Amino acid sequence: MLEKTLELLEDRNYSELRAFLMEFNPADIALLLGEVPESSILLIFRILPKELAAESFAYMDSDLQEILIRSFNDSELHYVIDQLYIDDTVDIIEEMPANVVKRILRHTDPETRRKINELLQYPADSAGSIMTIEFIDLKKNMTVADAFARIRKIGIDKETIYTCYMTDRDRHLLGIVTVKDLLLNDESALLGDIMETKVISVHTHDDQESVANMFNKYGFLALPVVDKENRLVGIITVDDAMEVFAEEASEDFAMMSAIAPTDDGYFKTSVFQHAKNRIVWLLFLMLSATLTGAILTKYEVVFSAIPLLVSFIPQLMSTGGNTGTQSSTTVIRGLATEEINTKDIFKVLRKELCIASLLGIVLAIVNSIRIVIMYQNVHIGNNSIYMIAFVTGITIIGTIMASELLGCLLPVIAKKLKLDPAIMASPVITTIVDACSVLLYFTIAGAFLNVPGIG
Amino acid sequence: MLEKTLELLEDRNYSELRAFLMEFNPADIALLLGEVPESSILLIFRILPKELAAESFAYMDSDLQEILIRSFNDSELHYVIDQLYIDDTVDIIEEMPANVVKRILRHTDPETRRKINELLQYPADSAGSIMTIEFIDLKKNMTVADAFARIRKIGIDKETIYTCYMTDRDRHLLGIVTVKDLLLNDESALLGDIMETKVISVHTHDDQESVANMFNKYGFLALPVVDKENRLVGIITVDDAMEVFAEEASEDFAMMSAIAPTDDGYFKTSVFQHAKNRIVWLLFLMLSATLTGAILTKYEVVFSAIPLLVSFIPQLMSTGGNTGTQSSTTVIRGLATEEINTKDIFKVLRKELCIASLLGIVLAIVNSIRIVIMYQNVHIGNNSIYMIAFVTGITIIGTIMASELLGCLLPVIAKKLKLDPAIMASPVITTIVDACSVLLYFTIAGAFLNVPGIG
Repeated sequence: MLEKTLELLEDRNYSELRAFLMEFNPADIALLLGEVPESSILLIFRILPKELAAESFAYMDSDLQEILIRSFNDSELHYVIDQLYIDDTVDIIEEMPANVVKRILRHTDPETRRKINELLQYPADSAGSIMTIEFIDLKKNMTVADAFARIRKIGIDKETIYTCYMTDRDRHLLGIVTVKDLLLNDESALLGDIMETKVISVHTHDDQESVANMFNKYGFLALPVVDKENRLVGIITVDDAMEVFAEEASEDFAMMSAIAPTDDGYFKTSVFQHAKNRIVWLLFLMLSATLTGAILTKYEVVFSAIPLLVSFIPQLMSTGGNTGTQSSTTVIRGLATEEINTKDIFKVLRKELCIASLLGIVLAIVNSIRIVIMYQNVHIGNNSIYMIAFVTGITIIGTIMASELLGCLLPVIAKKLKLDPAIMASPVITTIVDACSVLLYFTIAGAFLNVPGIG
Repeated sequence: MLEKTLELLEDRNYSELRAFLMEFNPADIALLLGEVPESSILLIFRILPKELAAESFAYMDSDLQEILIRSFNDSELHYVIDQLYIDDTVDIIEEMPANVVKRILRHTDPETRRKINELLQYPADSAGSIMTIEFIDLKKNMTVADAFARIRKIGIDKETIYTCYMTDRDRHLLGIVTVKDLLLNDESALLGDIMETKVISVHTHDDQESVANMFNKYGFLALPVVDKENRLVGIITVDDAMEVFAEEASEDFAMMSAIAPTDDGYFKTSVFQHAKNRIVWLLFLMLSATLTGAILTKYEVVFSAIPLLVSFIPQLMSTGGNTGTQSSTTVIRGLATEEINTKDIFKVLRKELCIASLLGIVLAIVNSIRIVIMYQNVHIGNNSIYMIAFVTGITIIGTIMASELLGCLLPVIAKKLKLDPAIMASPVITTIVDACSVLLYFTIAGAFLNVPGIG
C-alpha cells in the first residue's frame, strides 16, 4: 500500500491515488499517513474524499494529528472537528500543546465546548475519561415505532445506536432497550414494557481497567456511565474498552520489565526517550544490588576458605528470582483481571506457600544429587560434599519460601497503597530475593560448615 | 450475593431465591454457581427461570458445565444445548470427556451435529475455532424492508444481527450492511446499492491473536471469516475477540514468567497442578545456571586473589538480566500486538543497540564512581581501585550490549521457528545473560588486573 502510494505521488497521478486509497479502511489510511514523508501528509489528506479523510483522522496518532491541525485551513479544521465524536476530540485535546488546543476550541460551537470541558474534568484512567456522551436516549412511554423514528433522526451522529437508554425527567437511568429488542417486538409496543430494567452500569470515577474487565465478563456492546446522583451521563462502547484492555496489558508488560510505560509506539519513540524510560529503574536496581554485593563482602572469609561455595550462588539467585517472578506475575495478573482480590491475600498466601514447599523440595533434591555427582572427588577442606549439598538444599528451600512470600505480598501491598501492583514485578522482587538468598546461604553455610575463622 | 443465596437455600425459601437471582446477569449467576456447594448447583439451576438458567450455562467454566451435564435429565440437556450458540457448544465439547460429548451429541439434531463436526475440525487458536456460523445473510437484490423482514424472522437465534452479510449463490462474500445503514436508508432502497463492498475479512486458518488485533485496530463489532475459496463460512463477534485478547495476554504473562500456561483460573487449579506448571521451567533454569557456576569455578584463582571482585557479581548479573528483560519484553509485546514484524528485526536491533550504548555508558559511569567512593581506602593486592572500577565498567557495557542483542534476537528467532516468542522472555534471557556476564567479567578482569597465577 505504501509503495504504490509513493509511486502514484511521484507520478502526480492524484486521481488514481484517490481511487486507490478509497478502497481502504480509514484505520489503514491513518497508518499509511504515518509512514509517508511529512511533506506529503497534507497533500494526501486533501486528495481523499472529505468524509473518508475526516474518518481516518480519528485513527491517527497524536503526532500526526498535530501536524495536520497545524497545517489545516480554518474550514478544514472546522469540518474535521465537526465530524469527530466528542470523546475523540477530548482525547486529541489532551495530547496537544496549548496553542493547538486553543485553535481547536475556537472552531467548536459553544455547546460542544461546554461538553468538552465537562469531559476534560474526569481523572485520567477513569470511566468518565473514556466515555462518550453521544448516545440515544428514549422515554419509556414511546412506542417501538417512535423509537425507530427517533433513532433515524438522531442516530447518524451517535457512536452506537444498538443500545438505547431510557431515562426519566431527571436523567436517572430506568432501563435499556436494544435495537434487536425493537426489531423483534411489535411497532406499537411500549418501550416501558419491553425495556430491560436489570441494568449494569459503572460510575464516572470507576477505574477504566475494571470497566474493561466488565465488558469481557458480560460480553456487552456498551455500558452506561452514571454520576454520583445516579444520573446517566454517558456510555462506554466496546471498542474503547478493547483499547483500554490493550493499553493496560502493554502498560503492565512494560512495568513488569522495569520500563516506564508510555502510550507511544516502539518506532515512534526516540532512542533517547527509550533510554530515559529504562534508565531510572536500571540505576535503582543496580544500586540496590550493591546490597547483595555488600553481603558477599561480609562473607569473604567463608568463600575464600571454600571457593566452591561461590559457584552455587548464580543457581540460588536465579532459582529464587524465578520463583519470585512466577508468584508475583500470578498475583499481579490475577489482580488486573480481578480474579484475585486484595481480601483473598491469605488464601493466596497459603496456596503459594504449599506450592513453594513442593517446588523447594523437588529442586533441593535434584540440585543436591547434581552437586554430589559432580563434585564427589573434589577436595573441599574438611567438609564433606554431602554437607555442602545439604547446605545448598536448605538454602534453596528457604529462598523459594521467601521469594513466594514476597512475590505474593508485595503486589497486594502496592495495590493497598494505591500503586499499580505491576511495579512489584520480577525486577524488584528478584533484586530483593537475591539479597535474601545470599544472606541465607552464607548464614546456613557458616552454621553447618567448618570454616576457619568462623564460629 | 453468595451469602444471601446460601441463606435462602438454608431456609428452603426457593421462591424468594428465584426472585432474588432473577435480578442478576447470567454471567453473575454462572460465577455464583461456581461458589456454592456442589450439592446445591443443580437445585439452584432448576429454581431459575429456564431461559435465564440456559443463558447462564454459556458463561460457566467447563468443570461446572460438566457437573451439570452429568446431572441433567434428557429434557434439560436438550433444552440447554438447543439454546446455546453452536460455537459455544463446540467450546464445551472440546473440554468434555468422551462420554459426556456422546451424551451431548445424542441430544442435537443431525444438522447441528454436522455443523459441530465442521467447526471441530479447525485448528486450536485459529479464526475458525472461535467463529460462529449463526449470522444473518442477505441477498443484494433485497430491499431494506425485505432485510428487516428477514432479520425479524431469523434474528432471534443469531449471535449478532447488527452486521448482515450479502453473499452470491456460491456463498462468496459481496458486501456488508449494518442495521444502522438499514435504519438510515429508505425502506425501498436496494441492499446492493447501500452495501459496503470494501469488506475486511479473515481466513479460517488465521491466528486468533491477529484476528483480535484487527478488532482493536478497526473497532469492528464483527468480522467475516472466509474459507480458501473465499466463501463466507462464519463470523467472529467482538466479545469473542475480547476473550481471545485476555486469554493471549494471560498466556504471555505466564510464559514470560516461566509458567506453563493454562486456561484454568488461579483458585480452581490445585496446588499440585500449579507446582507442575512451574517446576519444569524452574528445573531447566536451575540446571542451566550451573553453567554460570562452572564458569565461576574456572576463575577461582582470580577471586581467591581479589575477593572483592565477587561482590560485584550480583550487580553485573542483575543489570544484565534487567536490560535483557526490558528488550525482550519490548520485542515480545511488539510482536504480539503486531507493532513489530519479524522483518523489522534489523531496524529494532539497530535501535536497541543505540539504546544499549546510552544505558551502558550511564550505568558504567555511575557504578564506577560508586566503587571508587566506597572502596578508595580498601587494599586490593597491587591493583588500584580505579582499575577495578574500569573493569566493572567495561563489563557492564559489554553485558548490556549482549543482553540487548539476545533480548531482541531470541524472540524473533522463536517466532521464525513458529514458537511463541514469549518463551524467550526474562527467565531464559536472564539465565543466558548471567553466564555471559560472568564470563565477560573474569575475562576482562584477567586481562586488565594483576592476578597471581594468571598471565
